[in-house]
Amino acid sequence: MLKVNDIRFESAEHVIQEIRNMNVKGGSPFGRAAAWAYKLACDQEVFSNREELQNRLDYLSSEMLELKPTMATIYNSKNLVYALLEANIDAEVLEIQEKISKLCQKIIDVSLEAVEKLGQFGGNIIQDGETVFMHSYSSALMSVFIHAAKQGKRFTVICTESRPLRESRLAAQILQSYQISVIYITDASAWEFMPKADYIMVGADTITFDGSVANKMGTALISKLAKMCNKKVFIASEIYKIDLRTKEGYQVRLERRTIEEMIQKGDFDSLDGIEVINQFFDLTPADDIHSIICEFGVIHPSTVGEYWGKLEKFIMEAAR
Amino acid sequence: MLKVNDIRFESAEHVIQEIRNMNVKGGSPFGRAAAWAYKLACDQEVFSNREELQNRLDYLSSEMLELKPTMATIYNSKNLVYALLEANIDAEVLEIQEKISKLCQKIIDVSLEAVEKLGQFGGNIIQDGETVFMHSYSSALMSVFIHAAKQGKRFTVICTESRPLRESRLAAQILQSYQISVIYITDASAWEFMPKADYIMVGADTITFDGSVANKMGTALISKLAKMCNKKVFIASEIYKIDLRTKEGYQVRLERRTIEEMIQKGDFDSLDGIEVINQFFDLTPADDIHSIICEFGVIHPSTVGEYWGKLEKFIMEAAR
Amino acid sequence: MLKVNDIRFESAEHVIQEIRNMNVKGGSPFGRAAAWAYKLACDQEVFSNREELQNRLDYLSSEMLELKPTMATIYNSKNLVYALLEANIDAEVLEIQEKISKLCQKIIDVSLEAVEKLGQFGGNIIQDGETVFMHSYSSALMSVFIHAAKQGKRFTVICTESRPLRESRLAAQILQSYQISVIYITDASAWEFMPKADYIMVGADTITFDGSVANKMGTALISKLAKMCNKKVFIASEIYKIDLRTKEGYQVRLERRTIEEMIQKGDFDSLDGIEVINQFFDLTPADDIHSIICEFGVIHPSTVGEYWGKLEKFIMEAAR
Amino acid sequence: MLKVNDIRFESAEHVIQEIRNMNVKGGSPFGRAAAWAYKLACDQEVFSNREELQNRLDYLSSEMLELKPTMATIYNSKNLVYALLEANIDAEVLEIQEKISKLCQKIIDVSLEAVEKLGQFGGNIIQDGETVFMHSYSSALMSVFIHAAKQGKRFTVICTESRPLRESRLAAQILQSYQISVIYITDASAWEFMPKADYIMVGADTITFDGSVANKMGTALISKLAKMCNKKVFIASEIYKIDLRTKEGYQVRLERRTIEEMIQKGDFDSLDGIEVINQFFDLTPADDIHSIICEFGVIHPSTVGEYWGKLEKFIMEAAR
Amino acid sequence: MLKVNDIRFESAEHVIQEIRNMNVKGGSPFGRAAAWAYKLACDQEVFSNREELQNRLDYLSSEMLELKPTMATIYNSKNLVYALLEANIDAEVLEIQEKISKLCQKIIDVSLEAVEKLGQFGGNIIQDGETVFMHSYSSALMSVFIHAAKQGKRFTVICTESRPLRESRLAAQILQSYQISVIYITDASAWEFMPKADYIMVGADTITFDGSVANKMGTALISKLAKMCNKKVFIASEIYKIDLRTKEGYQVRLERRTIEEMIQKGDFDSLDGIEVINQFFDLTPADDIHSIICEFGVIHPSTVGEYWGKLEKFIMEAAR
Amino acid sequence: MLKVNDIRFESAEHVIQEIRNMNVKGGSPFGRAAAWAYKLACDQEVFSNREELQNRLDYLSSEMLELKPTMATIYNSKNLVYALLEANIDAEVLEIQEKISKLCQKIIDVSLEAVEKLGQFGGNIIQDGETVFMHSYSSALMSVFIHAAKQGKRFTVICTESRPLRESRLAAQILQSYQISVIYITDASAWEFMPKADYIMVGADTITFDGSVANKMGTALISKLAKMCNKKVFIASEIYKIDLRTKEGYQVRLERRTIEEMIQKGDFDSLDGIEVINQFFDLTPADDIHSIICEFGVIHPSTVGEYWGKLEKFIMEAAR
Repeated sequence: MLKVNDIRFESAEHVIQEIRNMNVKGGSPFGRAAAWAYKLACDQEVFSNREELQNRLDYLSSEMLELKPTMATIYNSKNLVYALLEANIDAEVLEIQEKISKLCQKIIDVSLEAVEKLGQFGGNIIQDGETVFMHSYSSALMSVFIHAAKQGKRFTVICTESRPLRESRLAAQILQSYQISVIYITDASAWEFMPKADYIMVGADTITFDGSVANKMGTALISKLAKMCNKKVFIASEIYKIDLRTKEGYQVRLERRTIEEMIQKGDFDSLDGIEVINQFFDLTPADDIHSIICEFGVIHPSTVGEYWGKLEKFIMEAAR
Repeated sequence: MLKVNDIRFESAEHVIQEIRNMNVKGGSPFGRAAAWAYKLACDQEVFSNREELQNRLDYLSSEMLELKPTMATIYNSKNLVYALLEANIDAEVLEIQEKISKLCQKIIDVSLEAVEKLGQFGGNIIQDGETVFMHSYSSALMSVFIHAAKQGKRFTVICTESRPLRESRLAAQILQSYQISVIYITDASAWEFMPKADYIMVGADTITFDGSVANKMGTALISKLAKMCNKKVFIASEIYKIDLRTKEGYQVRLERRTIEEMIQKGDFDSLDGIEVINQFFDLTPADDIHSIICEFGVIHPSTVGEYWGKLEKFIMEAAR
Repeated sequence: MLKVNDIRFESAEHVIQEIRNMNVKGGSPFGRAAAWAYKLACDQEVFSNREELQNRLDYLSSEMLELKPTMATIYNSKNLVYALLEANIDAEVLEIQEKISKLCQKIIDVSLEAVEKLGQFGGNIIQDGETVFMHSYSSALMSVFIHAAKQGKRFTVICTESRPLRESRLAAQILQSYQISVIYITDASAWEFMPKADYIMVGADTITFDGSVANKMGTALISKLAKMCNKKVFIASEIYKIDLRTKEGYQVRLERRTIEEMIQKGDFDSLDGIEVINQFFDLTPADDIHSIICEFGVIHPSTVGEYWGKLEKFIMEAAR
Repeated sequence: MLKVNDIRFESAEHVIQEIRNMNVKGGSPFGRAAAWAYKLACDQEVFSNREELQNRLDYLSSEMLELKPTMATIYNSKNLVYALLEANIDAEVLEIQEKISKLCQKIIDVSLEAVEKLGQFGGNIIQDGETVFMHSYSSALMSVFIHAAKQGKRFTVICTESRPLRESRLAAQILQSYQISVIYITDASAWEFMPKADYIMVGADTITFDGSVANKMGTALISKLAKMCNKKVFIASEIYKIDLRTKEGYQVRLERRTIEEMIQKGDFDSLDGIEVINQFFDLTPADDIHSIICEFGVIHPSTVGEYWGKLEKFIMEAAR
Repeated sequence: MLKVNDIRFESAEHVIQEIRNMNVKGGSPFGRAAAWAYKLACDQEVFSNREELQNRLDYLSSEMLELKPTMATIYNSKNLVYALLEANIDAEVLEIQEKISKLCQKIIDVSLEAVEKLGQFGGNIIQDGETVFMHSYSSALMSVFIHAAKQGKRFTVICTESRPLRESRLAAQILQSYQISVIYITDASAWEFMPKADYIMVGADTITFDGSVANKMGTALISKLAKMCNKKVFIASEIYKIDLRTKEGYQVRLERRTIEEMIQKGDFDSLDGIEVINQFFDLTPADDIHSIICEFGVIHPSTVGEYWGKLEKFIMEAAR
Repeated sequence: MLKVNDIRFESAEHVIQEIRNMNVKGGSPFGRAAAWAYKLACDQEVFSNREELQNRLDYLSSEMLELKPTMATIYNSKNLVYALLEANIDAEVLEIQEKISKLCQKIIDVSLEAVEKLGQFGGNIIQDGETVFMHSYSSALMSVFIHAAKQGKRFTVICTESRPLRESRLAAQILQSYQISVIYITDASAWEFMPKADYIMVGADTITFDGSVANKMGTALISKLAKMCNKKVFIASEIYKIDLRTKEGYQVRLERRTIEEMIQKGDFDSLDGIEVINQFFDLTPADDIHSIICEFGVIHPSTVGEYWGKLEKFIMEAAR
């Protein structure tokens, strides 16, 4: 099974450093890294009173959020820790440290198990002889395909290359290593090959509170076309990627990246009058998504808020 | 104005040779090249009787069609010449040669003027301050944009790069040279940027008898999305690109090209179990096309057959 | 090839009689029968003057139209004959008789050839390995499938049974006899099996002037669903089935038939309060039809009026 | 029957004057007025040579087009007259005058008959017990309803008021006078009442060469909604309203009118920061139109160009 | 009111036997039958310890599930009983038996009341003078219509016959007995008659966790067409029909039944090359369903999981 | 911030009186007024026993509901008070009075805060430079725009006038006073101007249990068009406007108002045969709504029932 190997963090400062060095990648690892930072501070450091602890946690939070200001999973870890603090307003500092440590361990464990669980549920969806259409790369998605393969299903995956970085190459290689047959096409071929697909499966970068999904550019396009010709779109993602600020109306920031990823030396003599835009993510509205495959099962996109509530309660109970 | 420079063909054999060497490119140049072949044979060669002439024309036809078996414009030139032959069953061989030469000259002239004319009509469509969405490269399309610019219109063109060959780079450079502002994006961004566009304009590789259009992969996808959100799709193309065999139910052959255009060294260790498909053309149904911008004006796609009839009559009259 | 065997009519009266006995079936046979009636009258009977001839033709027309008041093809034959009369206002009665006879022969010949020609064009559409979705029975449609089979194509046809009479049983048997593989399903399964089909092919009972098609109940439903998921709908029909009165705004009468075709003894104790409706035909709007496969080729539905003009001219020339 | 009463023009100058005084209203009356101007000049005035005549016609044309620069029907009358001039390059001036007079009379006659003819065709469409949805006012549309009523059909018309001028009040009054029952609703209620309608019928201000229709603001909205729920949209209009410049890519100018039509005294203290826009016309794409009810019959919108050709030929023959 | 008469089961073995003899029919009766089996075993049999009880329950479960391996309601009853077992791990065997008996009684009571309750809610939806479109037969649906009739509403029901078994005959007869007027049509007429309907109401065989519904073949087709023309689709079903395994990604098994139901003696000489498929159920995606009428009220399909949670809690409390 | 000024009610009778005098306007004020009535009765009046209190509350309820029989918010206040009564079946009358008073105070406070909270959430949605499309008037909607303006966002609002009463004039004036730029158009222009809008925001009169929204006529039309071209529709409304009777299948009563609002003196001589309908509200199905902006955040329409549950619990706790 796709082994998720988090960095072996040594201390809270180490977490900050690894984030700064861009060694942490993907929404889920960031959420766990934040949990590690809080946990290691509570496990390793000594605080004479609650205020000291609070200051330390504030410092760690601001460091991490300065480096990744739009990362929903860091916010989620921070919010859980702070909710715990508030719920234990009169407790001894040592007791709080212990509780935070337990809570963060739970955050980490739950996240690591989620990819495994949703992989099983997604694997159950895939039937022998079917063809699945995917786009870009996502470890949750890989987990789904690998589970299906391990269940003995024989199926085909159509991969669009996903310009500019063509992350689907990595997906194709992983699928290849599990003897899953792959059809590899350009992004512009999505509509041409869609009739061959039984349904669509993609990952998620961020989930909004009302069930929409930010993911690699092209996901919304493919989902809209799929909807139009009555093919289901499944999103494979743990619930922890929900961006709770969207509940308050804040919009998911859809990153644009460097144009160097899109153009190469020699493509243009000059860029005078040519604006190259490397819009990296887009937002697929909940309406175009059939279900989200998460650690709780295959759920309707409109219920992500309800499941976040369950997840939050489950994690918080670890620190009672 | 975009100067169309056909090769200066020396003889019928020279035409064949240049086709073989792949120096003739694009539907329109192929149609003219075929006309050159027939014309040069009739101008330069001596035939003792009608049968000799017929044999020579048959030979030239079969050579050209063997090299480009799916090229509608070669068929169109051939069919016009053969219709002339049939209509002059009792004429002297010299008289026929002269008539074929005139007919072929007309074919060439008409084609060269068509891009100019449709450029003017298309230029009239574009209004100051508008944004046009295009895909891939087409000289007819360039003619439209250049005419609009020369008419003093200031507008913006959104170009999808058009993987795998990214022909839009050439389009962007030409637009740049006319001070037309360009936004250059990946193909997968088509849906994200469509709200910014007032309408879509693309070229055509081949037109079917019922008004559908074969063009660079991605055209059908973009047209379907445009239709969905009520943006008009215009096709810029001379009528000569019609494939008359589609009237009899034959399907346009949608070329697949070498996968080397899609993948580079190092992309994959091996391609075991990975089928790379470089489907180069797709077919946009007439339903998704608002109008065709051709040498006759801006016409409804369903009327291409009617306009072919007019064009054929006009050309044939040259040889009366 | 599907041999079309018209009844061997002996006289004009015989035609009327066979229509009355309901031995003439299908739009095309009715058009030819009417031509036979006029032709046999002109060949066999003696008229002392133009007025006598006119009276005879009027009588035949009114007899036939009283029996089949909504049959477009009878009107078409009648209208052609009467146009000829009008164009020869000063001719001798014998000369007119001869001209009518020629005209009617042409009507008959053209109709018999049409099914053959459109079968070839339609056969060209079908490619090896494809799956075609059909509904009900139509001899034009059978001609398409048989031509495809004779061209060596191996393909599958999905047949909905077409309640209440389940005419698809006959279609399935004919296809079976040509070794074409058939999937036979209930009408309600149309949507379930549509993803397996590459496109839809059906016949026509009547064509309206703006390109809509009346056909067996269910055709409009299937066409709407096909349109929605981007599958092309082809109609196989000769142009002669056009109902020219629709040009003047008259609506095609969509027949309801006896409820005995729908319910059997024992289905209901009584029909008090239950209205059983056996609506036998529906009207598919031109918008939902991709092309009409007719004797002129594979044409856009909006051009049926134009092709009727060509057909009329072609037939009328026979009597010049 | 709706009596069309053109002004009794006394002279070419009188025509110009009445146009200037805004006593000519509606596309069709403008086309006829232009014909009157040319005709009266040719009937009443003396020209010593062809050049003098040409100058006079040029003067009249520029006067009329300066007053109504976007009126397609004036252009159409002008173009027919000028085509006649060109076709008679060597004729005597008197002969030309006579021909122009005949041509213009034909233009006038044909236009006056057109509304009558299309009224009959449209009336045939309407069936007993049906409900028709209309918007704004159009004399062609009134002709349709009156013919249906005279044919004895009992039906209901739903009228949206058509803000800002609420021209539907006039329509309602005319329908009332023919005992046609009317449901009168606000424009915003269009979607709420559409399920009660069997189909939509509206008029046209201008028809584009590819079959789209400019008409009172709201027509495109209603047509799009009708299309969505599978109700047919019929346009009642004579073909003469075609704007031939659209064939060359020029866009129909969609007039905005004074905001005084939209707001009344007291509606706002000031308009600082409030842009009131009285966009008076919109453009319904051919795709959303089922048929055009014109003097030739009920035709597919894509064929308007073909019918313009027929009309032009028919009119020009009058002056042979 | 439609009296639901379950079989009077004598013992657990009797339940198994009746299932084996196919005397239990419909999702709800199966769920209750399973509850009876567990209850009767606990009421009538003696177990010396918990293990013996467990073995007995395991045996009953495996017997029932072997006979009906895809029946969601049997799983639901089983799961509730087993959850109770687990929650009472340390209780005396007699106490557990008593609790299981209470729990099962609750399952039975709740199910019997559900059809009554949802009938009232659904009856409230129907307004005087409306026309409802239905398909196939469902006792929950009948309950809705009967309640509406008892509330004094006068309305019309359009019934598609629902080939191959034409279960709608039974529906028509029941409606007839309540003086509800019925229009009885073929399945292929669904699109033709939909404009006459105000909305659609059908039953359910199984509900998936994300709100989709498996029901008699044709339901998905009708729902898709209804959605397209903006008519609401209501599903009448108790929540107990939810298939919880779909939460884990397992797909609802859509039964195919014997082809004898579809073809009769004499339909075909042989079936060589003809594959007859009697696909009996299809799956309507949650997107095409407006609301589910269940015992909790008229709910959004995406909330079925939430209501299952409420139902489960309510039932489990009976055994506290 | 938009100051919500409820009437200063003096007594329960005063509330009734003000409702009777039509001084209470809007769903939220009615809900609060009902709470005031119950609260003032409990604060000011003396009841010797529970029965007396019950009778008084019954009287107040029936008075209010007789005056406004379709107002969901009055029902909601009543139901909360009666649920409290039932939950305190054995309490002393004075204790109950106190509890009711607290509960009603909570209802009032929560409602007053809701508009403020949802204004903030909605304000967060709006981004600098965007254009928002609105229709009619709603104080919740105004709160959203004012919050966005106070957050320093510069944006444009397109207002349809909203015939017949043109409530958008008030909206335009309020926006004007906050320097928000406004484009003011007719209702029929909604489709023409929609391409300029980034998304739609409207208010709500009533919310149904499954997430549909009743609002000023035209809302459903605009939402359907927006959905079609992929623009999000946001509804700004507090959850308290939910009509819980819709859970039981009862339909929201969509008011028709006096035709004097639609026609003026002189519009028609008589209304014989003209039915003027002033349908004032329509119902937008949940499917066409992207999110509801409420006091809990920006939620999926299908979850309104869930949030009502939370709100009810939160309010009830005030009276524990």
